Amino acid sequence: MIKIIVDCFGGDHSPIANVDGALSALEKNQDLYLILTGDETALRAALDGKSYDAARLEVVHAPQVITCDDKPTDAIRMKRDSSMMKGIMMLRDCDDIAGLVSIGSTGALVTGALVRLGRLKGVIRPTFCPILPTMTGGIVGVCDSGANVEVDAAMLRQFAIMASLYLENVYGITSPRTALLNVGVEPGKGDALRQEAYGLLQETECVNFTGNMESRDLLSGNHDIVVCDGFSGNVLTKTTEGTALEMLKLLKGKIYSRLKYKIGALLMKQMFTEIKDFMNYQNYGGSVLLGTSKVVVKGHGSAKAVSVEKCIEQAYKMELSGLGPKIEAELAKYEHYEE
Amino acid sequence: MIKIIVDCFGGDHSPIANVDGALSALEKNQDLYLILTGDETALRAALDGKSYDAARLEVVHAPQVITCDDKPTDAIRMKRDSSMMKGIMMLRDCDDIAGLVSIGSTGALVTGALVRLGRLKGVIRPTFCPILPTMTGGIVGVCDSGANVEVDAAMLRQFAIMASLYLENVYGITSPRTALLNVGVEPGKGDALRQEAYGLLQETECVNFTGNMESRDLLSGNHDIVVCDGFSGNVLTKTTEGTALEMLKLLKGKIYSRLKYKIGALLMKQMFTEIKDFMNYQNYGGSVLLGTSKVVVKGHGSAKAVSVEKCIEQAYKMELSGLGPKIEAELAKYEHYEE
Repeated sequence: MIKIIVDCFGGDHSPIANVDGALSALEKNQDLYLILTGDETALRAALDGKSYDAARLEVVHAPQVITCDDKPTDAIRMKRDSSMMKGIMMLRDCDDIAGLVSIGSTGALVTGALVRLGRLKGVIRPTFCPILPTMTGGIVGVCDSGANVEVDAAMLRQFAIMASLYLENVYGITSPRTALLNVGVEPGKGDALRQEAYGLLQETECVNFTGNMESRDLLSGNHDIVVCDGFSGNVLTKTTEGTALEMLKLLKGKIYSRLKYKIGALLMKQMFTEIKDFMNYQNYGGSVLLGTSKVVVKGHGSAKAVSVEKCIEQAYKMELSGLGPKIEAELAKYEHYEE
Repeated sequence: MIKIIVDCFGGDHSPIANVDGALSALEKNQDLYLILTGDETALRAALDGKSYDAARLEVVHAPQVITCDDKPTDAIRMKRDSSMMKGIMMLRDCDDIAGLVSIGSTGALVTGALVRLGRLKGVIRPTFCPILPTMTGGIVGVCDSGANVEVDAAMLRQFAIMASLYLENVYGITSPRTALLNVGVEPGKGDALRQEAYGLLQETECVNFTGNMESRDLLSGNHDIVVCDGFSGNVLTKTTEGTALEMLKLLKGKIYSRLKYKIGALLMKQMFTEIKDFMNYQNYGGSVLLGTSKVVVKGHGSAKAVSVEKCIEQAYKMELSGLGPKIEAELAKYEHYEE
């Protein structure tokens, strides 16, 4: 039985989306056991009238909610009775619980997990790895996307190792093509950090290192993993999201400006829906923390039930595949190893 | 008379686009004098039969061409007879020449200008500042976009000062709203570099500092200038370009997949043309180097005549407005000042 906590508050559609997502995941995976944290009355109301295997579902009362307005460092200290922090503390303290899924504040979740959960053996710093859809219908993982704004080359190598094992074990991608984000593709490009990381990645056996990647190539489908410091990874992912959204807004604004365009858009309605679906976060699960002692998955704040279910499945697969022990075994092969 | 060199080779549409752009600029600005560098036979052929004021146009023979395959550091040493390097050396050696416009290799131009031209008094490092169109019909300058991958806070402050003076003097934007690229908008976000730069920018009188900006907000129209290190600035600009192009490619691919969509697209043809125009580099001139002793403007490699003309106008306005002396006067007010 794999036990996973679902933090049921803090998202735009909480707690309904969280509860419904949890019930779907529960139905599909017979060896899954879920613990829902949050205001018990609200959770019982959301569960009321729904059919599920009550022997594999538990509700833990946690009346507080961490919002995006809460400063992460304050939230993890002051809101111990929140659905998120109660979840993190249970995860830390109970050996038989494998992971946590949350769609609440990213800052609080990452800070809480880094501060309260231990690291896997050998990990210098846990990293945050979201998955983006590529234009060829595949996916690409960006690691680190913002958990560590200051890194060294040894950390970048660890990010590559952890992300490679993650994509292999959870997404079934063999030898994921792993590139280093840089200002040009030629070897020798970039600052001292990038040059050192390039050398380390080349000699890392379990990483299928394909060289430098320029950011304009992110969605091309030529890469499975992009390794970067958290500052530029944050710029990379947020610029991609921002540009795509601004372009859709521009299109929409123009379409409404003339009747002819509206008719054209009507003919293309299905196409636009397909594009929106394709770009929709809901369909790609969550971002994972790699390197913490237990599994942590962060879904998008606007996650609906289908997306919460995907996040739970990610956490489930991470545990089922033994990702944590595999990461520890691989990191032990290299220098810059911290006990 | 303002004298500007036009490097006529190295672009996709060279030398015709360069020559035609030069002639248009010459016609519109009566106190402009242009020096075209490149293979003289080819340039004379391109000029043949066209009407222009020959007293304000000069051709300087330079038979070599620097391509994007040339390593910048090699190119500036080995290809001294190239249209670009001959232009840079003339610019350095002739007091009466104000600037250079090129659509050739960015790497060679930036390296050549940094190595061969001096800096303005007080400038720690010259910076590269492209202009992007925002979704509200305005522009935003990104500074630095890749000339300096390693920077300190004093350099970031200088970038802000130089870019502010540039947007004021060349684009007529009063007190340009200047933001610091960061991983979150709250003060105190980011690494030590960002935190120090935030403090310096706050106390810089001639900069209208508006705080941190997340990259997803680049095209929103809320900012006139974004200050950043060259590594993340490079990620920012290339991701924006890459995502926009990939989305257009996706749209195009989908449109051709069904007859219904093709008809819809036909109705929206004018709209798509408008969007393409709006996103078209050709309409926004070039990226400028700020902080070199003389004016240097880099146009897009695929620049057509209209774009080359815009680049020449940028160089002309930079010189006419006395941007260089204004930058020197402003930088002298602050610490971290290098003689």
